[in-house]
Amino acid sequence: MKRTKTIRLLPATTRNPERTQERILEAAFQEFAANGFAGARVDSIARRASINKRMLYHYFGDKKALFREVLRRKMDQRQPWWKATPDDPRESMPYWFELACQDINWIRLLEWEALQFGDGRLIDEERRALASSQAVRRILRRQTRGHLSSEFDPDCMLLAMVALTWFPVAFPQLTRLIAGKSVSDARFVRRQKDFLRRLAAAFKPDNLDSKPEITPINGRS
Amino acid sequence: MKRTKTIRLLPATTRNPERTQERILEAAFQEFAANGFAGARVDSIARRASINKRMLYHYFGDKKALFREVLRRKMDQRQPWWKATPDDPRESMPYWFELACQDINWIRLLEWEALQFGDGRLIDEERRALASSQAVRRILRRQTRGHLSSEFDPDCMLLAMVALTWFPVAFPQLTRLIAGKSVSDARFVRRQKDFLRRLAAAFKPDNLDSKPEITPINGRS
Repeated sequence: MKRTKTIRLLPATTRNPERTQERILEAAFQEFAANGFAGARVDSIARRASINKRMLYHYFGDKKALFREVLRRKMDQRQPWWKATPDDPRESMPYWFELACQDINWIRLLEWEALQFGDGRLIDEERRALASSQAVRRILRRQTRGHLSSEFDPDCMLLAMVALTWFPVAFPQLTRLIAGKSVSDARFVRRQKDFLRRLAAAFKPDNLDSKPEITPINGRS
Repeated sequence: MKRTKTIRLLPATTRNPERTQERILEAAFQEFAANGFAGARVDSIARRASINKRMLYHYFGDKKALFREVLRRKMDQRQPWWKATPDDPRESMPYWFELACQDINWIRLLEWEALQFGDGRLIDEERRALASSQAVRRILRRQTRGHLSSEFDPDCMLLAMVALTWFPVAFPQLTRLIAGKSVSDARFVRRQKDFLRRLAAAFKPDNLDSKPEITPINGRS
């Protein structure tokens, strides 16, 4: 990026290009989560970022390039979380669920993508496929080291872990219909974490040994 | 519905009002699954059903009323499946997954709803809440009868069963990124069913007894 030239061309509010770009990416993330890639409008992103559209194009090119940068930024932000995942599934599943509850817009963004581009070629597909295969390898390593049962197909296990921890966030209306609660309700979050801890015992190499460590259920709330 | 009056008013192609209504509901279902409630256009539904818009309004009122009828029709259609759910979770989970693979548009429709109305009041909410509480009661009955472990919160168990069996359909791009396959691939379906059968053993009251019944894994495909 030709930063010196940029600074000369643009107004005083944007003297700090990194901060400006960060503001655009955050605004774009909010817009993509709210309306999906197809429904997102560059005008709205520019407005959310308090920037003119010309400058946005200058930094990021078109909407597709902007979406790719938003994805990469989010994946970078999420990287430390992934790495901090506890080895024990009875800890990692409640942990993933908590992260999902704090990252609703990330799940929404992927949900829009599922509806609009799920069967087609994805933006930044190679890089994302690589990240997914690294995540599967982490499962495999945990299987090899005896943290996770080798009985399960590691791809399916990863999918199941994401499914169990994301679903109440991805389908808030079904959560409300079934459990009468939402993920913004601390009591439901506790109930769900307790449930995940219990179910995750099934992913342990010997799920009998692990049972006594589970704390008793606190009753329905 | 004043059927005699209707027949006199409408063209020859619609002499069979039940068939016409059925055609409209199916067209509306396709349109809502493709574009969501907010994006669906009554024009498109009328076109899909080869009917004029005036007649569509005559039968169903507005788009909201049409959506409600589509929901009710789908829930009625799905009722026998729910009832035919095997008691043993090692059978019911692969069964639910197979149904999900055959009912992608139902999941898409609810996914749109999640994004667009997930936190707000739902169309036909009372009736749907009732159906959900009946589903939870079926889980409770299976717990009481010893088919499902009473260790788990029944609401969370139902949510988990839906999550595990719907997620690969709801997020086809993540399934492809993680497993390299889609739910239209018979080998992936077999792998996922085998996985669900194994994991579902955790929902049995004593998941040790059930282990020998599980067939050996067929290897990755």
